[in-house]
Amino acid sequence: MNTSNTGIAGDADPAVRAELARLRESIDNIDAAVVHMLAERFKCTQQVGHLKAAHQLPPADPSREAHQIARLRRLAENAKLDPAFAEKLLNFIIAEVIRHHERIADGADPRE
Amino acid sequence: MNTSNTGIAGDADPAVRAELARLRESIDNIDAAVVHMLAERFKCTQQVGHLKAAHQLPPADPSREAHQIARLRRLAENAKLDPAFAEKLLNFIIAEVIRHHERIADGADPRE
Repeated sequence: MNTSNTGIAGDADPAVRAELARLRESIDNIDAAVVHMLAERFKCTQQVGHLKAAHQLPPADPSREAHQIARLRRLAENAKLDPAFAEKLLNFIIAEVIRHHERIADGADPRE
Repeated sequence: MNTSNTGIAGDADPAVRAELARLRESIDNIDAAVVHMLAERFKCTQQVGHLKAAHQLPPADPSREAHQIARLRRLAENAKLDPAFAEKLLNFIIAEVIRHHERIADGADPRE
């Protein structure tokens, strides 16, 4: 996908536009990978939601979440990603998952 | 990592605990992949930030962002991920990137 001729880069010199386009292609590839990983993640959490609903387990699990956050902060630090950002991102995703679980528990599966 | 004996699943029957542990291991693997993809993404956006700062391009680029959002919504739909969630997530990540770019433009590189 050609993203080099759109937006603010249109007025920059050709070498800068080419470099910006190269970086944006990598960003777009990474975003596609992340979207597909998250689609797979929600398939897993949907299954968790059904399991929890079937066995009357609560949608949220604070000890699991604390464990996930601590682990992700360690992984982020090793990958030189801001651990605070990784934690905010996980909380953002978990909030969405809990909304799904609550809907499953209420009998309305958001994926169906 | 054994996550089957912690939290709410401790009281559930062993088959349920095992299934929950299996799903959580997949979720943890996916989260590690996402953290590493995002670490790589921020390496790209840091380079974009330096390029923009060096050539006096503004940190935000609304036409690029509109293009990214439309593309990610299409990818999300194909992957059966909620497009509204994909859009919210991208906005969340872009907000962080713009904060980084502003800091780079101000002369303080958040990665250094």
